[in-house]
Amino acid sequence: MNVFIVYAHPEPRSLNGALKNLAVETLTGLGHAVEVSDLYAMGWKAQADGADFLDRADAERLNYARESGHAFATGTQTPDVIAEQEKLLWADAVILQFPLWWFSMPAILKGWVDRVFAFGFAYGVGVHEGERWGDRYGEGKLMGRRAMLSVTIGGREPHYFERGVNGRLDDMLFPIQHGILFYPGMAVLPSYAVFQVNHVSDERWQEIAAGWQARLHGLFDEAPIPYRRQNAGHYDGRQVLKSGLGAGEGGTRIHLVQPGEPPERPLARKIAYETEAL
Amino acid sequence: MNVFIVYAHPEPRSLNGALKNLAVETLTGLGHAVEVSDLYAMGWKAQADGADFLDRADAERLNYARESGHAFATGTQTPDVIAEQEKLLWADAVILQFPLWWFSMPAILKGWVDRVFAFGFAYGVGVHEGERWGDRYGEGKLMGRRAMLSVTIGGREPHYFERGVNGRLDDMLFPIQHGILFYPGMAVLPSYAVFQVNHVSDERWQEIAAGWQARLHGLFDEAPIPYRRQNAGHYDGRQVLKSGLGAGEGGTRIHLVQPGEPPERPLARKIAYETEAL
Repeated sequence: MNVFIVYAHPEPRSLNGALKNLAVETLTGLGHAVEVSDLYAMGWKAQADGADFLDRADAERLNYARESGHAFATGTQTPDVIAEQEKLLWADAVILQFPLWWFSMPAILKGWVDRVFAFGFAYGVGVHEGERWGDRYGEGKLMGRRAMLSVTIGGREPHYFERGVNGRLDDMLFPIQHGILFYPGMAVLPSYAVFQVNHVSDERWQEIAAGWQARLHGLFDEAPIPYRRQNAGHYDGRQVLKSGLGAGEGGTRIHLVQPGEPPERPLARKIAYETEAL
Repeated sequence: MNVFIVYAHPEPRSLNGALKNLAVETLTGLGHAVEVSDLYAMGWKAQADGADFLDRADAERLNYARESGHAFATGTQTPDVIAEQEKLLWADAVILQFPLWWFSMPAILKGWVDRVFAFGFAYGVGVHEGERWGDRYGEGKLMGRRAMLSVTIGGREPHYFERGVNGRLDDMLFPIQHGILFYPGMAVLPSYAVFQVNHVSDERWQEIAAGWQARLHGLFDEAPIPYRRQNAGHYDGRQVLKSGLGAGEGGTRIHLVQPGEPPERPLARKIAYETEAL
């Protein structure tokens, strides 16, 4: 299988660098093909702006989403963005490796998302009419792929439980796991999170490495997070969760299929997307 | 009073630009002093990397937090970062004006946070010993200031309710409002969110503008979001919410003081911080 690792840390000898290297080695050893985008080493342009579009539809006033759709449709995206989209389409699994900075991804990685997840590619996909609000949340051009976050965290694990002072890690990652990865169709595995990373002894590194290798071995077998798919019957035509579902849950958790609930319906059709625009 | 607006949109004639301009005009008209950081116009460096430190403590291996603390303490931060920290210290209120891109802030604004919110300035502040885990979540160097997000959103409002397909806006903004703004001590007002911004008629703009002006008039009067302060008695020495508090709530909401709960205790002392390092 093909695995694409997007790696965002400025120091090659960091824990993030070590986890990235271990993933390459482990996955290659398992017979997978691996591609890495090392965003810092590539000098990835983080800010999304008008320079991202080689042939503006409106040269006077920049509407980023509109220009993104125009550039994607006309083949006038910048080469760096096209290369990343090709890696995403090539991949069977995508791993984002990054340190949790201010409870989210580093700016350079957010800029990878802002620029690469184009209109027509990662959003604005599929039919929007009547009660159908496009192909997203479980459907989309990245459907059929798996995704996983591998995150290093300075703080202590109990601070990231629901009642911990920072709040629950899965709530914090929801905008990324649900809003960025599941949105364009990827099945998202639980994150691999390592806490208290400021001082890692050799002994602790052995544990961290073993845990990471175990997760990498399960990359194509583990059950994904059971986020509800938008077009599989649990949301109504207004894109609101139907009453009776998510009972007893609150916050982001109501968007997970709960044990005992009526199953989602199979998706109506197998979706084949045109990718010639790339 | 002094108001600092951090504005992150690449198009001056955007709705974000109009909201920023209206804020400057309205707040100035109310007699406040206003400072704007227009991140795109400033060419703000988004990625956090080794170039942020003019005199590295360790020139061989980059530990970003450690170098951030060293640079802050020794006055060797870059001038762009120092200027933003000075604006934050000058301000009585801070407004972040941005479009919601992929359920979070644009990369350029995340990069403003990653670089400006230095160790010793926004985190790593105060005594860390025994059960005291530093000054954060309601205490810190930005204590006494107010903060508010003003966010434009492409989607429809019902999609951002708790049962809407995207999940609740306040859950999505929690890592920013709680994790970035409340963490270094600011009191956070509810966000001003405008939905379905792709086509805004003149009539709708009048409504949006009136709503925004009303919020700006209340900037120093409105009640902040009642996030629990770390050191005010609701969390135990492990930084975990004490049992009995947050009953009946789940997710991020358990970190809000609930009606009927025992009040937080007053903070033990008025904190005076040294800012000479700037």
